[in-house]
Amino acid sequence: MKAEIIAVGTELLLGQVVNTNATYLSEELAGLGYEVYYQTVVGDNPGRLKTLLELADTRSELVILCGGLGPTDDDITRDILAEHLNEALVMDQKALDYVVSYISKSGRPMTPNNKRQALTISNGQVLENPVGLAIGTFYQAENTAYMVLPGPPRELKGMFEESAKPVLKELLPQKMKLTSRVLRFYGIGESRLVTELAELITTQTNPTLAPYAKTNEVTLRLTAKTETDEEALLLLNKMEEKIQEKVGTYFYGYGETNSLQNELVNVLKKEGKTLSSVECLTSGLFQSTISTIPGSDLVSKGGVIFPSLNQLVVSLPNVSSQNKSNDYLDEQLLTLVAENCCQMFETDYAIAIAGITDNCQSESYDVGEVAIALTDRTGKQEVMRYNFGGNKASIQYQAVLKGMDLIRRRLLSK
Amino acid sequence: MKAEIIAVGTELLLGQVVNTNATYLSEELAGLGYEVYYQTVVGDNPGRLKTLLELADTRSELVILCGGLGPTDDDITRDILAEHLNEALVMDQKALDYVVSYISKSGRPMTPNNKRQALTISNGQVLENPVGLAIGTFYQAENTAYMVLPGPPRELKGMFEESAKPVLKELLPQKMKLTSRVLRFYGIGESRLVTELAELITTQTNPTLAPYAKTNEVTLRLTAKTETDEEALLLLNKMEEKIQEKVGTYFYGYGETNSLQNELVNVLKKEGKTLSSVECLTSGLFQSTISTIPGSDLVSKGGVIFPSLNQLVVSLPNVSSQNKSNDYLDEQLLTLVAENCCQMFETDYAIAIAGITDNCQSESYDVGEVAIALTDRTGKQEVMRYNFGGNKASIQYQAVLKGMDLIRRRLLSK
Repeated sequence: MKAEIIAVGTELLLGQVVNTNATYLSEELAGLGYEVYYQTVVGDNPGRLKTLLELADTRSELVILCGGLGPTDDDITRDILAEHLNEALVMDQKALDYVVSYISKSGRPMTPNNKRQALTISNGQVLENPVGLAIGTFYQAENTAYMVLPGPPRELKGMFEESAKPVLKELLPQKMKLTSRVLRFYGIGESRLVTELAELITTQTNPTLAPYAKTNEVTLRLTAKTETDEEALLLLNKMEEKIQEKVGTYFYGYGETNSLQNELVNVLKKEGKTLSSVECLTSGLFQSTISTIPGSDLVSKGGVIFPSLNQLVVSLPNVSSQNKSNDYLDEQLLTLVAENCCQMFETDYAIAIAGITDNCQSESYDVGEVAIALTDRTGKQEVMRYNFGGNKASIQYQAVLKGMDLIRRRLLSK
Repeated sequence: MKAEIIAVGTELLLGQVVNTNATYLSEELAGLGYEVYYQTVVGDNPGRLKTLLELADTRSELVILCGGLGPTDDDITRDILAEHLNEALVMDQKALDYVVSYISKSGRPMTPNNKRQALTISNGQVLENPVGLAIGTFYQAENTAYMVLPGPPRELKGMFEESAKPVLKELLPQKMKLTSRVLRFYGIGESRLVTELAELITTQTNPTLAPYAKTNEVTLRLTAKTETDEEALLLLNKMEEKIQEKVGTYFYGYGETNSLQNELVNVLKKEGKTLSSVECLTSGLFQSTISTIPGSDLVSKGGVIFPSLNQLVVSLPNVSSQNKSNDYLDEQLLTLVAENCCQMFETDYAIAIAGITDNCQSESYDVGEVAIALTDRTGKQEVMRYNFGGNKASIQYQAVLKGMDLIRRRLLSK
C-alpha cells in the first residue's frame, strides 16, 4: 500500500529542526508493510499545503501529516485538510475537557487559541494524545486515507504507538499478515553486525532482516509474511536461532521501545535487588536514565554526584581527606566510594563511574578513558576500564550504557 | 528566490537514515536569503524522481538534489537529471584522474562503476568534492537552476562550503541581506506569547517575527531584510524593545542554541558562585542537564539523589532518623536537606527538589505537585510550590527548568 509523509512546519524549512518524525514514521510504516514513496516538508502556508494534498491524492493510498496542530494561527494542518476533504471542523468534547483542566491546573489563563487543539475533522476518527493536548485525526476518503499527527516528537510517538498503529494495521488490505520481531544489540556496531549476518541478510526473503543503527546500539527487525500467527512464530524463531548463534552475545532484549535501562530495572525487580551509584563522570545521567522506567524507584535507590573523582567531598561515610587523590581514575578510590555508596544507600549493588572529558586537565589520560567500579554487599568488587570516543555528552552516554549493561550481566550470570 | 531540496535515497524512506542534509541545506539557504518552500525525499526510483523534477520545474527557481551520486547502479540522480535536462553525461578528466589515483592507492581493483563518480552534466559547472570521490554539478536551465550534491553528510557539507556556496551567492538577484536574532522565553506558553504579541506579529513585515514552541520554552526569531548590517541592527533593536516591553519578564537569553542551563552556568561563573542539589524527584536530571554546558564543573559541584523525600537516607550531615518524614513534600525537611547539601558540597547555593509522580502512593497530593527549596550559604531560604502537568518525565523536566530559572533569577536580582 503506497504511503507518503507530509511534515508541516516553516521551522523545518528554515533548518531549525531536524525532521526526525519522518524517519520514525517511515521505519514504523515499513515495519507494518506500507511502502513509503515520498516524504515532503512544506511550510505553514495554506496554498502550498493544499496543492500538496491534491498531489498526494493522485499518488498515495495513505497520507500521514504531522505538525501544525498547535494552538496558534500558523498551525493550519487540520484546517487545510478539512477544507481539502470538504468537511467541517468539530470540537471533541473529551479533548476540550482535558485542555481546559490542563490549562487551569497550570495556572495560566485560557486563551481562545487553546481550544483549537481539541478540534477534529467531521466524519473522522479521533486519535487520542497520551502525552500532550492536541488530538489527531484519521479520515478515510474514497481512494486515500489521511492521518494527522502532532509535531513534537514525544507526542507523535505516543499517539502513533497508542492510537495510530492499531488503525493502520486494520487498514492494510492484504490477507498475508506481517509479523515483526525486533532484536536489540548492545556492544556491536551496525557495520560489524551486518558483516556477521551478511549471508542471512542478502539471501533471506521471509522473514526479511532490516538492521537499524541507533545511538550506541543496533536493532534488527525481522518481518515475516504469513497467513497465520503460528507460521510467523515458526519462521521468526528459526531465523532468530541462526542470528543468536552468530551475534547472541551482544543481544540484550526484544521490542521497538525496549532499552537497556528497562532490562536492567526488570532484572533488578525480578531478583529483588537494589542499586545505587556514584557519578563522577555522568553527573546524574545514570540515575536519571534509569528513572525513566516505571517503578525504577523500587530498585534504584539514588546516589551521589561529583564533577570528577578529584572533586570528591569527604562527607561520605569512611571517606576522609586522606583518601583524596589527584588521579582522575584512581581505581582504589573509585572502589572505596562504590563500597561506601552501597552502605550509605543500603543497596545490594553500587556502581561508581569516573572518566576523562575535555574539562579534565590530565596529562596521564586521554579524553574518553573511563573507569567503572562495581561492588556488591558481599564485598565482591571489580573495576573495568574503557576508552570511548566522541564529545563529553557522548562519553557520558556510553558510560551510562556500559554501566547498566555491566550490572545487568552480573545479575544474569548469578 | 524560491528554492527546494530533493534528497534521493530509499534508505531515507525506510527510516534507516535521518535526513540531516535537508536541515543543513535549509539553514544555509535561509542564511543566504533563499526561501526554501519544499523538502522532498524520494527513493532510488527513476520514474518517481523524473516526475518530481518536472514538478520542481514548475514551482522553484533553484532545485538542490542530494544523494544518489555513488558508484552503484541504484545511484541514479545524475543520470535522471541529465535526461530531464536533455543533456549528455560527460566525463570530467580531472575528477577521473583523482578517482583512479584514489582507488589504486587503496589497493582495491578499479571497477567500471567507480568511473561513474567522475561524470558531470554537459553544459553544467563541476562542483569539486574536497572530501570524497563523487563530483557535483551546477546547471542553469531557462527558468530553474539545478545543483547536485553528494549524500554522505561530510561530503555534502564540504562541497557546499567550498564549491556550492559561492555559486549560490552569485545566483541571487538581490543584494538584500537577511539578518536574524533569536529571543528565548521561559515561563510563558507559545499561545500566550503569540496573544501578547499578536499585533506586532500580524502587522510586522520587516523584521518579521516567527515564534517557535520548544519543549517548555518558546523562541522568537526576528528577521530583518536590509542592505547594510547597520540598518539591520537598528530595525532589530527597535523591534526587540517593543517585544521586551510586553513579555520581557519571561525573556532569558539570545541565540538559536542557547538554553536556561547555559545562562545559569554563565551567571554562576560571572558571579563566582557554586551550586549543589538534592534531587528527590528529578533523579539526577538537574545535574546532568547542567553538565552538558562546557565548564559546568567549575560551578556545579554535584549533589545527592533520592527516589523521593520519604526514601531519604540518614547519612547526610545533621540529618538523623528523627528528621524522617512520611510527607512527600515536607517543606521543613526539604529546606534542611538543602542546607546540608550546601554544607556537604561546600557551595554557595543548594537546591532541593521533591515532587509527586504516579509512583507515589499519596492521598494528600496530586500527581505533578512539586516543592523546590533554595538555600544559600548565608542561611537565606525559600520554598516554592508548583503544579506541573504531564507524565513523570515531563514533570521532572519542568522541575529542572524551574529550578534552574529560580537560581538564575536569584543571582541576577542581587
